[in-house]
Amino acid sequence: MKLASLKGGRDGRLVIVSKDLHWYTDAAHIAPTLQAALDDWDRISPKLESLAEDLEHEAVPRERFHEHDAAAPLPRAYQWADGSAYVNHVELVRRARGAELPDSFWEDPLMYQGGSDGFLGPRDPITLADESWGCDMEAEIVVVTTDVPQGASREEALKRIALVGLTNDVSLRNLIPAELGKGFGFVQSKPASAMSPVYVTPDELGDAWKDGKLHHALKVDYNEKPFGRAEAGEEMTFDMGVLVAHLAKTRAVGAGSIIGSGTVSNRDPDNSPGRPVADGGKGYSCIAEQRMIETIASGKPATEFMKHGDRVRIWVDGPDGKPLFGTIEQEVVPLQTSATGGQ
Amino acid sequence: MKLASLKGGRDGRLVIVSKDLHWYTDAAHIAPTLQAALDDWDRISPKLESLAEDLEHEAVPRERFHEHDAAAPLPRAYQWADGSAYVNHVELVRRARGAELPDSFWEDPLMYQGGSDGFLGPRDPITLADESWGCDMEAEIVVVTTDVPQGASREEALKRIALVGLTNDVSLRNLIPAELGKGFGFVQSKPASAMSPVYVTPDELGDAWKDGKLHHALKVDYNEKPFGRAEAGEEMTFDMGVLVAHLAKTRAVGAGSIIGSGTVSNRDPDNSPGRPVADGGKGYSCIAEQRMIETIASGKPATEFMKHGDRVRIWVDGPDGKPLFGTIEQEVVPLQTSATGGQ
Repeated sequence: MKLASLKGGRDGRLVIVSKDLHWYTDAAHIAPTLQAALDDWDRISPKLESLAEDLEHEAVPRERFHEHDAAAPLPRAYQWADGSAYVNHVELVRRARGAELPDSFWEDPLMYQGGSDGFLGPRDPITLADESWGCDMEAEIVVVTTDVPQGASREEALKRIALVGLTNDVSLRNLIPAELGKGFGFVQSKPASAMSPVYVTPDELGDAWKDGKLHHALKVDYNEKPFGRAEAGEEMTFDMGVLVAHLAKTRAVGAGSIIGSGTVSNRDPDNSPGRPVADGGKGYSCIAEQRMIETIASGKPATEFMKHGDRVRIWVDGPDGKPLFGTIEQEVVPLQTSATGGQ
Repeated sequence: MKLASLKGGRDGRLVIVSKDLHWYTDAAHIAPTLQAALDDWDRISPKLESLAEDLEHEAVPRERFHEHDAAAPLPRAYQWADGSAYVNHVELVRRARGAELPDSFWEDPLMYQGGSDGFLGPRDPITLADESWGCDMEAEIVVVTTDVPQGASREEALKRIALVGLTNDVSLRNLIPAELGKGFGFVQSKPASAMSPVYVTPDELGDAWKDGKLHHALKVDYNEKPFGRAEAGEEMTFDMGVLVAHLAKTRAVGAGSIIGSGTVSNRDPDNSPGRPVADGGKGYSCIAEQRMIETIASGKPATEFMKHGDRVRIWVDGPDGKPLFGTIEQEVVPLQTSATGGQ
């Protein structure tokens, strides 16, 4: 089944969305919010599944689903931990600055704790106060867990994955080096991430969800041009089970925790760094990677980071050629200084 | 006023606690949880204040307040961001390993994003699966905010501080070097933190809350012996307003965000590293600091990290010599492998 949260209040209103994303039906009588459903998933998810079937059979009242009415499925969450499972991406970053990749990076996942107090909806703009911060997109796969016990194995962790979705993990590249240098991870350099209009249960993905990996191309358009077509199931060094187990090594992980894959990234078949889509390659899931390739090729980057007015689209097509999770579609806008924060 | 959450469900039940911590009255008819109160603080806090007055005047039904019945005031939160405001502490860590402190550390706060999906209550044990991880306490001050707009100034941030409390930010010292080396902050090396039985509004602290600092000694006993008596208002390089504004630089901060001071730490009056309480000094708020002092003095640490059965108490006495926030009192215990996680 596919779940969304319509905008309204701090946590949205839970709805079931039809497989084709055309329709929704209210699920608030079963659980008011997605978090409430995840808090009691074993009991509530069968009821939601039953409602989802009724929706497919047009046996319940339904309304047109508009992605721009959707908040993030969890508009705020108790945890957002983002891995960096495509080590190809990490190696490229390092090569661009002439640094070796430690061997341990192939065995011990990189992961950071991100801010989860407010996620952007799939059509919400990226509010950028200062263009010199170097705003970038990062297209990723995310999973949402139920409760995961401390010390869970990979296999146990895989069973606790309730939902799969997409994120744009917005990054401020020019603030990253100073924060990485301090060793304490990302605080200012990772503003709010955006989420796909719907999260879906793994069974909805059929064979494309296997061994904790999503076997589909993650598509990114930048300013209406194809930018990334990387295969999310290939070259994923650490699957989602490994990432969740990594997080749970020393502490229990609460229901509704969102865990990210890190930027999806592929090499070219000849093992060279990936080429742009325009040159027949699979392109990139973030601008930084394109800049690294440019730096490796010609000594300096040519592509600029995102400025006000730039637009990014992120989605995954299913076997029928239609978006599985809906589409993240965002424009970078200036900060309105009259904004009072809040919601 | 003083607020607590009695254990029950994932988010506890909101109660008002009397100033002397002897009594509580139910506040669930005003807001079911502390998060719900913080979500609408301007409207709800006056009602809670009024109830708190009634409690002091014995004008409402009341029950005895037992700290061991309390969960963390926010048993889970949408954000936990921990600063490192006592640069003395940071300098000691570095001196012990022969590293210089960069000048920038006096101007740019260290801060990491921590896990907030589950906090320990004030009497909950610290579940430690492996003693070789090097379990340590870190006694800190925390504040809880209402909504803070992106780009808020220090002054604006100070106005958004709704509550003040204490934490034991449990740290696994022997897992930290590898995680710091990766630059991505703390994931496995920071398991769940414990919180004081009550959080209090700043006005409750009188003159002791000034310029975003708590002007009281933070008391730590370790295995029933005085271990730390550091003054939280002294040598705090970055006040809470600066820390909250740091977090809000690139993104709005949601209501119910918890921001920590980092380990409270004082030098001795002669500017030498602090001495143990037993030697007439103010002692330490974590074992690591004592080990650093030992390393500086004699080349190697003498005090071991916490083992199963070790106990820590953390509190702050008010002007009347009684704990203002109640007492965090925890024992380190082995992981029960039959645990199923969850609640």
